[in-house]
Amino acid sequence: MRLRKVKGASETIAAHPEIVIPNGEELKGNWQSVFEKEQPIYIEVGMGKGQFMIGMAKQNPHLNFIGIEKFDSVMVRALEKVLEAGELPNLKLLKIDAEDLTDIFAENEVEGVYLNFSDPWPKPRHAKRRLTHENFLTRYEQITVPNGYLRFKTDNRLLFEYSLVSVTGYGMKLEDVALDLHQREALDWNIMTEYEEKFSAKGQPIYRLEAQF
Amino acid sequence: MRLRKVKGASETIAAHPEIVIPNGEELKGNWQSVFEKEQPIYIEVGMGKGQFMIGMAKQNPHLNFIGIEKFDSVMVRALEKVLEAGELPNLKLLKIDAEDLTDIFAENEVEGVYLNFSDPWPKPRHAKRRLTHENFLTRYEQITVPNGYLRFKTDNRLLFEYSLVSVTGYGMKLEDVALDLHQREALDWNIMTEYEEKFSAKGQPIYRLEAQF
Repeated sequence: MRLRKVKGASETIAAHPEIVIPNGEELKGNWQSVFEKEQPIYIEVGMGKGQFMIGMAKQNPHLNFIGIEKFDSVMVRALEKVLEAGELPNLKLLKIDAEDLTDIFAENEVEGVYLNFSDPWPKPRHAKRRLTHENFLTRYEQITVPNGYLRFKTDNRLLFEYSLVSVTGYGMKLEDVALDLHQREALDWNIMTEYEEKFSAKGQPIYRLEAQF
Repeated sequence: MRLRKVKGASETIAAHPEIVIPNGEELKGNWQSVFEKEQPIYIEVGMGKGQFMIGMAKQNPHLNFIGIEKFDSVMVRALEKVLEAGELPNLKLLKIDAEDLTDIFAENEVEGVYLNFSDPWPKPRHAKRRLTHENFLTRYEQITVPNGYLRFKTDNRLLFEYSLVSVTGYGMKLEDVALDLHQREALDWNIMTEYEEKFSAKGQPIYRLEAQF
């Protein structure tokens, strides 16, 4: 995601602690307390401007969602969208680095992890920064329930090739792989991200995998 | 592969026992004896008209190859090409059904298995006939060395999606995945099949996976 500095972003974020949860570490093991209903929690790591999380929260009122993003300038855009979307008691936002996930969530606290159009970090020497690198998989595994899910979409062929090798090499089971998601029938369950709308409109294939720890 | 009956196919095949090995079962455990040099044996299951096997045998004189095909009408085309190609002491052909692989080869007798543009058998009720179904994987595993390889190319998206799930579900490790093989650099190692030449010329992506037992 291209980053532009957004004036007053951190102030806007601080003004909405009911949506952008400020004290993540204190909530470790107690995340259900920030939601109206106690129900399975799914997180999106690197939610960008939040369209996916908002769509998922609307579509699945029986699930709780936490959208994670590390940049103020991006988080503030997501916050604005959540405010526009109106009451969504099953969606919260969290401004942390994905490296700190295990400081924020306790074991078994999360049902599954979503990754969408993550930064490809194409240079081999940056492979460790890819969100499907084993260093991140190990964090996801630590905070998810046994047999927890990872669901990952991207338009980036090289990142997807890498991710297939990485998640299966880690020992995860592929439950489903789509190599051109939008060719599938009955896709009403699929909430599109901003990127996905743009790329699939151009006819570029969207790759998706669903894997289980 | 579309099949046309070829007149005199079985007679032509029978006339060349030095290339199309007639007595597979008797050679079980003793396949090195049909080759000039004792060196690792790779097989292609469903070799079609043989272009891939001939290319591989030429490119890799330090390896032995056995091209397997069950239909006379296809085998005779491969045989003609092998005869045209001239002396290839490291290539033999074998007319058997893939279901019988374990009657023909002993444990550890094969180094790796190639599958190229295998029949997709698109109907779910035919899934068991796909050459990447676990029923076949278990046969390949039985005849290959520990950590033996499966290398599979196809242009069929659905078969490739299925195969990724199937081989990793079987417990194989993905060593490499290419979702558009011909976009890769330094592809001189890649021997193209007849289908591959046709499809990649049209700009259609060729999928490839390399997995290890």
